[in-house]
Amino acid sequence: MTETFLKNAWYCAGWDSDIGIGAKDLVVRKIAGRPILLYRKLDGGIVAMEDRCPHRSAPLSLGRKEQDSIRCMYHGMLFGPDGKCSHVPGMATVPDDARVPSLPVVERDNWVWVWMGDPAKADADLICEAIGPGNPDWILKTNKIQIKTNYRQEIQNLADLSHVSWVHEMTFGGTEDWGYIKPKHNVTPRGIETRYCVRQVPAPAFAKHLFPEDARFDIQVHVRMSVPCNFILSFAVHEAGDATSGPTNGRLLLDTFSSQAVTPRDDDSIDYYFSWGTSKATYIPGIVDLMHTANMEAFLEDKRMLEGQRERMLEFPNAPLVDIVHDAGPGRMLFVLDKLLQEENEAAAAREAAQ
Amino acid sequence: MTETFLKNAWYCAGWDSDIGIGAKDLVVRKIAGRPILLYRKLDGGIVAMEDRCPHRSAPLSLGRKEQDSIRCMYHGMLFGPDGKCSHVPGMATVPDDARVPSLPVVERDNWVWVWMGDPAKADADLICEAIGPGNPDWILKTNKIQIKTNYRQEIQNLADLSHVSWVHEMTFGGTEDWGYIKPKHNVTPRGIETRYCVRQVPAPAFAKHLFPEDARFDIQVHVRMSVPCNFILSFAVHEAGDATSGPTNGRLLLDTFSSQAVTPRDDDSIDYYFSWGTSKATYIPGIVDLMHTANMEAFLEDKRMLEGQRERMLEFPNAPLVDIVHDAGPGRMLFVLDKLLQEENEAAAAREAAQ
Amino acid sequence: MTETFLKNAWYCAGWDSDIGIGAKDLVVRKIAGRPILLYRKLDGGIVAMEDRCPHRSAPLSLGRKEQDSIRCMYHGMLFGPDGKCSHVPGMATVPDDARVPSLPVVERDNWVWVWMGDPAKADADLICEAIGPGNPDWILKTNKIQIKTNYRQEIQNLADLSHVSWVHEMTFGGTEDWGYIKPKHNVTPRGIETRYCVRQVPAPAFAKHLFPEDARFDIQVHVRMSVPCNFILSFAVHEAGDATSGPTNGRLLLDTFSSQAVTPRDDDSIDYYFSWGTSKATYIPGIVDLMHTANMEAFLEDKRMLEGQRERMLEFPNAPLVDIVHDAGPGRMLFVLDKLLQEENEAAAAREAAQ
Repeated sequence: MTETFLKNAWYCAGWDSDIGIGAKDLVVRKIAGRPILLYRKLDGGIVAMEDRCPHRSAPLSLGRKEQDSIRCMYHGMLFGPDGKCSHVPGMATVPDDARVPSLPVVERDNWVWVWMGDPAKADADLICEAIGPGNPDWILKTNKIQIKTNYRQEIQNLADLSHVSWVHEMTFGGTEDWGYIKPKHNVTPRGIETRYCVRQVPAPAFAKHLFPEDARFDIQVHVRMSVPCNFILSFAVHEAGDATSGPTNGRLLLDTFSSQAVTPRDDDSIDYYFSWGTSKATYIPGIVDLMHTANMEAFLEDKRMLEGQRERMLEFPNAPLVDIVHDAGPGRMLFVLDKLLQEENEAAAAREAAQ
Repeated sequence: MTETFLKNAWYCAGWDSDIGIGAKDLVVRKIAGRPILLYRKLDGGIVAMEDRCPHRSAPLSLGRKEQDSIRCMYHGMLFGPDGKCSHVPGMATVPDDARVPSLPVVERDNWVWVWMGDPAKADADLICEAIGPGNPDWILKTNKIQIKTNYRQEIQNLADLSHVSWVHEMTFGGTEDWGYIKPKHNVTPRGIETRYCVRQVPAPAFAKHLFPEDARFDIQVHVRMSVPCNFILSFAVHEAGDATSGPTNGRLLLDTFSSQAVTPRDDDSIDYYFSWGTSKATYIPGIVDLMHTANMEAFLEDKRMLEGQRERMLEFPNAPLVDIVHDAGPGRMLFVLDKLLQEENEAAAAREAAQ
Repeated sequence: MTETFLKNAWYCAGWDSDIGIGAKDLVVRKIAGRPILLYRKLDGGIVAMEDRCPHRSAPLSLGRKEQDSIRCMYHGMLFGPDGKCSHVPGMATVPDDARVPSLPVVERDNWVWVWMGDPAKADADLICEAIGPGNPDWILKTNKIQIKTNYRQEIQNLADLSHVSWVHEMTFGGTEDWGYIKPKHNVTPRGIETRYCVRQVPAPAFAKHLFPEDARFDIQVHVRMSVPCNFILSFAVHEAGDATSGPTNGRLLLDTFSSQAVTPRDDDSIDYYFSWGTSKATYIPGIVDLMHTANMEAFLEDKRMLEGQRERMLEFPNAPLVDIVHDAGPGRMLFVLDKLLQEENEAAAAREAAQ
């Protein structure tokens, strides 16, 4: 069977604060189609394993933490943090195959990342560079939403910001300029990178009330997207300059940064984790709260559009699609994803044929 | 694939008042499996088109009316009332295939009718003759309900009024006479037509309190059904006469008329639009309110029966069915529908074979 | 098609008090995939038949009791308690195939049992021996719950009480001893039978407050399970004795008895009917209420675990399972069920081949 999720990739499993260290703190996340149990050991390290007892498929998340181990509370089997069963009540010997797949896990930038593929290939350097709310140089707020969409549609949404003018007319938008920008997207080994400047635009709708009506700004944008669907955005607001190409030469007013990690739960829904805020150097009292509220509203605008799109895609599964100029970014990002997926599917087919 | 819905037919999309002329008035109806967007132009004329942007399947109903056009609010593509894209932000030329199927639409008798098939074949003379609440000679009230049933079961329900005695015991019924009537149903090009008189019956249950217990009436019934599932009923209450065949010769007491249009949303549900009322000439104060309340209650009785039937049909998909005498009307009506469906399916297969 | 439910078996359709004798008392139960209508005749005897009119599949449970018959309230067809149609309004002759399958039904121990297979094979001696709340020697309370699980998982749950230590830690458990017991399960023609003594255990969690902390008991257990999934439990609490094998020799304190009948509704859910209580001879005021509350709480613990297990089984339909020592009882019970199922499936295939 062809897999639709990349295995050898880091998937965000949430914010570090989602996973407590209490005796009762067991967290389940559906990631790329698999239910994953997460909990902290006594030393604070995070354990990630499949949330399924190999005996009769009971969820381990209905179990009991015992030191660093987890006991299945259906028949009492005890599993270590490596997923290996250490004890079956009533049996002197533990069956060899009594083992739960455990997963490499890394905490970075206040995010928890889980590697869904071959543990030997788990390379923490593949985790996207982000800025977390714990970073001392930034003031950031976080949130999360769930959207009923396939993650490919979320990729298409994020890899083309022309939709800001339309979907986000009432929040991030407020000018049609975004809808006409056709930036160059550079392909990277695991995604795309995009830099451009939006020039001479009014303040976004959510902040218009802070400025005179004729105030104009240059916005310097730097996007790095990576598989499965992570979106790292530097969004720097400058006074409008007079450069007409290349970076703005206007004075920096507000340096903002948004880290967004999208994790497919299954083929039909995603978990969306995000932060946004400003550097301490450019911070203005109240601005991060304003940005954060606008961000949540904007992502609900996306959710409404994506869930509407999903309904129509289910109704018209084979309808031809018309391509437009703004599909360049989405196309490049999906090209990278599909290339990696194809490599994994071919390797899996080869392994199967060799058996 | 064999289609289960007739394409070359007028489907009711609701009451004219459902579709406002305001800037925000965008209405979506699921008709015969397709989501249809409806809105009014500045001149009041109605536009009907598929509710799906050809770019990436976003619903146009999440878009923005601009004069007589509709802008998709995902990436800003603008579509005229004919469904043709007139502008893509950032592109000098519009792709040839950037076009939404638009549908012929007619307003008549306060109903909005949409033609789902070949626009060249749309013939307004095929719209069933009805009487709408706007008619100056009638006093009518309207309502609508949704029922989880395939429209073929609704056809069976409407084409045989013997069920009035049983399903509507507490509303339209109140006598078993209806259950024994076996009228002759004449086949018409797009349906059936039925005329008969129910003689010497007590008042229907909902109106029994208005008459002495021994009051008896003749009810002259004239039904015209047409595809897909429209039901036009003249129901005239007379003093009981002494004619034993043919039309009643009793004095006319109350001339009532009900126009009912049933639109399949999909294979599993229908929208049911209906009106009922009396001629001004025979109007009695309060009577239309009483009739209307009874009508809504009666249709909820149908809904309960039809949705129960649907559950059993899903549980017993291949169970043999026993035919009885009252299946004559439903059989004739389904015969007409199936003949037209077969013609369309054969024509579609021929077109496909010719390609 | 291979059937997953045994046909030639008695299925519990509820408590006798569930089925009233009033004119409106029509009860529907989904049993082994089929909707079954139950009602009482004037003499109090229960009628069971398929809840589907053979005309157009309307539910007879939306019908009207007329003496011992049931009238379908869609088109007025009348069916006797044997399921045979006795009258079709408007027809002089009743079509031969106008007949609803009727089912053998027995009331015993306050339970109503329905035979889903060949009526000629219905043998009331195959009904499991239980004790109902009407029994003059016992004080019992009853209840029921619904669980989203396949009945095979419920069989696995009941045929192995080692789960009491874990799932029921807060109710029936309170000691890990249950988790280590490996009783011998004897195969019977329609199930399994198991006897053992749990020795020197503290009171169960729900009753711990009634005894000194160091009080220890012997619990004599006798389980009889039978197809499809009936569970008859004698659970007798004794003072801890000094026998180390065979029955306890401690003094009997509390003789309790639980009758549990589990009826699969469909492949995905069950109805669970149960009673629990004590003999009058050993009754202690208040004890049956305490037991009954604990019982309901415990079955909700099972429900949570079984529904979690179901989710994982749907997510991992082909995952290999690891067997442990406690699977002996479930394995024997499923062996009996599968043998009977195979016999029925083979007989059905032979009948089909002979046609």
